[in-house]
Amino acid sequence: MKNKKINTIISLLGSLLFLLGFVLLIPLIVSLIYRESLARIYLIPAIISLFLGVITRFKFREDEISLSTGMLVCALGWIIISIVGAIPFYLALDYTYIDTLFETVSGFTTTGITVFSNLSSMPKSILFWRSLIQWLGGLGFLTFFLIVTFRGQSGLFQLFTAESHKINMSRPVPNIFKTVKILWGIYLGFTVLELIILKFLGLSFFDSITHAFTTLSTGGFSNYDQSIAYFQQAGYTNYKIIEYVIILFMALGGINFLVHYKVLTGKVKELWQGIEMKYFWGIIVTITSLILLDHYLHFPLILNKLEETIRHTLFQVISVLTTTGYGTRDINAAFFPALAKQLLLLLMLIGGCVGSTSGGIKLIRVVILNKLFKRELKKISYPKRAVLPVVVDGNIISDSEIFRVIALLFGWLLLIVIGGGITALTSDLPAWNSFSGIFSALGNIGPFYFSVEKMQSLSITIKITYIIAMLAGRLEILPIFIIFNRRTWRG
Amino acid sequence: MKNKKINTIISLLGSLLFLLGFVLLIPLIVSLIYRESLARIYLIPAIISLFLGVITRFKFREDEISLSTGMLVCALGWIIISIVGAIPFYLALDYTYIDTLFETVSGFTTTGITVFSNLSSMPKSILFWRSLIQWLGGLGFLTFFLIVTFRGQSGLFQLFTAESHKINMSRPVPNIFKTVKILWGIYLGFTVLELIILKFLGLSFFDSITHAFTTLSTGGFSNYDQSIAYFQQAGYTNYKIIEYVIILFMALGGINFLVHYKVLTGKVKELWQGIEMKYFWGIIVTITSLILLDHYLHFPLILNKLEETIRHTLFQVISVLTTTGYGTRDINAAFFPALAKQLLLLLMLIGGCVGSTSGGIKLIRVVILNKLFKRELKKISYPKRAVLPVVVDGNIISDSEIFRVIALLFGWLLLIVIGGGITALTSDLPAWNSFSGIFSALGNIGPFYFSVEKMQSLSITIKITYIIAMLAGRLEILPIFIIFNRRTWRG
Ligand SMILES: [K+]
Ligand SMILES: [K+]
Repeated sequence: MKNKKINTIISLLGSLLFLLGFVLLIPLIVSLIYRESLARIYLIPAIISLFLGVITRFKFREDEISLSTGMLVCALGWIIISIVGAIPFYLALDYTYIDTLFETVSGFTTTGITVFSNLSSMPKSILFWRSLIQWLGGLGFLTFFLIVTFRGQSGLFQLFTAESHKINMSRPVPNIFKTVKILWGIYLGFTVLELIILKFLGLSFFDSITHAFTTLSTGGFSNYDQSIAYFQQAGYTNYKIIEYVIILFMALGGINFLVHYKVLTGKVKELWQGIEMKYFWGIIVTITSLILLDHYLHFPLILNKLEETIRHTLFQVISVLTTTGYGTRDINAAFFPALAKQLLLLLMLIGGCVGSTSGGIKLIRVVILNKLFKRELKKISYPKRAVLPVVVDGNIISDSEIFRVIALLFGWLLLIVIGGGITALTSDLPAWNSFSGIFSALGNIGPFYFSVEKMQSLSITIKITYIIAMLAGRLEILPIFIIFNRRTWRG
Repeated sequence: MKNKKINTIISLLGSLLFLLGFVLLIPLIVSLIYRESLARIYLIPAIISLFLGVITRFKFREDEISLSTGMLVCALGWIIISIVGAIPFYLALDYTYIDTLFETVSGFTTTGITVFSNLSSMPKSILFWRSLIQWLGGLGFLTFFLIVTFRGQSGLFQLFTAESHKINMSRPVPNIFKTVKILWGIYLGFTVLELIILKFLGLSFFDSITHAFTTLSTGGFSNYDQSIAYFQQAGYTNYKIIEYVIILFMALGGINFLVHYKVLTGKVKELWQGIEMKYFWGIIVTITSLILLDHYLHFPLILNKLEETIRHTLFQVISVLTTTGYGTRDINAAFFPALAKQLLLLLMLIGGCVGSTSGGIKLIRVVILNKLFKRELKKISYPKRAVLPVVVDGNIISDSEIFRVIALLFGWLLLIVIGGGITALTSDLPAWNSFSGIFSALGNIGPFYFSVEKMQSLSITIKITYIIAMLAGRLEILPIFIIFNRRTWRG
């Protein structure tokens, strides 16, 4: 029984490595196009992946898997492909292996915290690989889990997260593989659309495709140290429109892709009718307004700078809410006063919609917690025996689902306390700034309240903590705890 | 029906005012003893209270009350006695009425945030009144709720909070009034004991009784601007022992009084056998060790200062965990590095044991959330239909109780976000420091990460926010929301 389980795990991980082997050929081609003579750095990990993939697939047979095994495979899968995916960075650049692993995990989990500097001097294929892993990670985590659990007991993936739950509840077609195809189709379509628009607005083809990758995946890696502020600084005439376009596509990346599917098939009302979408727009309007209010309590209102201020504010709110993490202004700057800084931290916790590429706790969980809170208040005024279910979009949320949401929130807070503590203990960062780093890592956001140079110089302990946090956030906490549970490894 | 309900509310509030009228005679006597000729400032509110108390008790008749009415009466009760209890401060001192109301609410809720300065120059009877309201508030909130709900449907108070729930579950005698008598007996006994010890160690009788009041009530008001650090600075030879004695009695104030009852009746094991006590001691040891570790990573270890460092650390950990808020060191000082500051903020959230005079979310809720989290992790590895209850000290915690705990936590976080935001918006405090103020107010602690002078200078908006937060924390959140619910006021 035990061997059977471990065989299944190895076999599934082998399949994933096999796939990674082929994916590594894409930056290889890019390096050939740009005549970088870096073929070696992609061929080595590609061959390792394909070799391991083939022998594990031949040696081990797959079997039905349980929920805990599915979670375990998801967690281990992303760790393994990050370990291999880091090899090109390690071979091409002058960083320690831990730093390149950090960058790769930050990529696959679509976190976007970078420990690399002087990005614009790097080989093109390296920058391409860096943005491609974000694009693959964006929809990849969800896909991999759907496929892994689909092999298991029927209805299993319903149990897992609100994410797969919602996907299952309202997926357009009963066949899971067709659903996955539709999701990737929409993802690819939006990416191509953004690529074309950015190219049209004056970006190079290379900048257009890499930024399209990291916008739709809400990843946030840019080819420039200045992030999106680069386009203004480098004198792009269309920089304002570029910023608005990126705002639009970040928002698209943060919305449930099944909502996109419905909108694309004619049900445009879906964009604002579900409660999660109402929260999405409501939060954007409210938080943007509050930050503007806070800003103008600290700075004079100059009319011909009003558009600029609103644009920077809106950009940052959508960037953090969708967990993209692009910047046109440093969130640590005086431009964002104390309340603004608090609100951006709050947005880091919340995150985007389920079924999107966003990280964070996800809006629907905030909705559920809010409804639960109101229900408990109501209970006090109602007769003792009144039954008051928690209803979201007409569906009763079961007690066991509510408990899962709470466990997620509690695990999240626990990791914030632990990670913030480790950061504070092993660095010279103040208490608040230490917390912001772990908020950002766990929410797969990117920015935090200290400088990128500071991040690069932090201890290995902190970097490993953040690697675990980035994975934990992307896997929605529970699988990470599952790894450390002995029972999971038993038969 | 509606009139009947409002009559009951008025009648109960009248009883409370009537009681307050008599209580106000105590500082009146103190002022006569010290020949301060301040009788007037106590007589005026006493007469108002007695007058209002008498007419409402004669005019209105009481009736059975519902849970929501009980909560409403508790919330309104403490607001009304604070409004009247502030009058002596307002008449004797040169502060605005809002400032004196703030101080009174801070007193009754045992928060201990002060907006008064030059305490040692104040009339003795004023300082006495200031510490007496903390002593009355310490056990008063619990008592008042027990008595109010006892009038209602039988078993009603079981529903309310873990506090009254636990009291009911394990109260020593079936009669509620006898239970209350036992609680106050223990409270009074400990207070007298501390008074005697402090007097013996060299404090004046006045300092001994007032500090005994504010230790056991975990209130934290001191007669000195320097708080407990005063005794060292003023050259008391026994200052070390004084500090250890206060550590001991703060801990006693933070422990469930029913545990004290059991210990006093011979069951000494109760001090460490229940899970809440295990958490209590475990947290003290763990957090003290972590803070010491953090401290010594930033400061050299000087052996003949080791005892002092441990003493200051232990003092602050127990002071914050029990929500007393006394200080021998400013928590904002470099003595407590970044991790220490984070941990003290975390302790502000947690608070002491149920059935104690502490504020905060209370340890037992942290236990329940932790057990729930572990249960949810277990669920993943267990067969789908396995029933895994949340068990605390051998008792199964019902789903509805878990939901109440979560609602409390969610309401708490909500108020922290709102209160921290208001502080940041209407002051020049940074984000982190703004949050610390509302953590302290809501947890009924006292200290925060800015200076007392800064607190005194903050806007009325912030002061009113903190007044609401202090009441909300002491009433455990839900009753405050109940006030703003229209349904509560209906029949
Ligand atoms: K990101
Ligand atoms: K206090």
